[in-house]
Amino acid sequence: MKDSKKDIIQVFEQLNGYFSPKIIAEVNDVYIKIAKIKGDDLPWHTHLDEDEFFFVLQGSLTMELKGQIAFQLKQNEFYVVPKGIEHRVYSENESWIMLIEKKSTKHTGEVKSDLTKTIEEQR
Amino acid sequence: MKDSKKDIIQVFEQLNGYFSPKIIAEVNDVYIKIAKIKGDDLPWHTHLDEDEFFFVLQGSLTMELKGQIAFQLKQNEFYVVPKGIEHRVYSENESWIMLIEKKSTKHTGEVKSDLTKTIEEQR
Repeated sequence: MKDSKKDIIQVFEQLNGYFSPKIIAEVNDVYIKIAKIKGDDLPWHTHLDEDEFFFVLQGSLTMELKGQIAFQLKQNEFYVVPKGIEHRVYSENESWIMLIEKKSTKHTGEVKSDLTKTIEEQR
Repeated sequence: MKDSKKDIIQVFEQLNGYFSPKIIAEVNDVYIKIAKIKGDDLPWHTHLDEDEFFFVLQGSLTMELKGQIAFQLKQNEFYVVPKGIEHRVYSENESWIMLIEKKSTKHTGEVKSDLTKTIEEQR
């Protein structure tokens, strides 16, 4: 069992590409994912039935919720986007984030973009 | 919405007591919790139907799984205890951990001890 522990920093270091979530653990019916964020390519989208947990491990993430003023999530800060809230995230400089999502959560909701990843592509 | 973001270090600093998980977020049917661990007072226990995610944010946590050699989870390391596996954790010196658990997860499984906390006591 010892071999299945992992260092989250090492997993980030092995991760290529931005806005490309990687599943790092499976816990009951949720996936724990990490992602590197840089730029503003992620489209606005909504997860109708799923809350989404964001936790910033490095850098700073800008969170935008439709109709509200954007705010920063800095290192060590976390935030839950409630289901049904249209949102997008971006970072001017690279940020590293942890996500906690129900397995049914689609990367960019019902919106498709060039960067949208299927669950298979997140493994 | 900005006001509902939190800094995990600040939440740890406000947490009193060891082996006393505190719910910091609710994401669909899981709770995100933090706990400070020091000593070896937590009894061996099993969550029959729930996996449990451990992530060490500070210090070092010893993980024991029944019949296996204990191992250390150091800062930034994470591990999932699969459902049905008897386990316990301890720390010689204080450690800070994040837990991801299904809402139905009982603190010490079906085992009761002086430190066992109900979900209400984890709020």
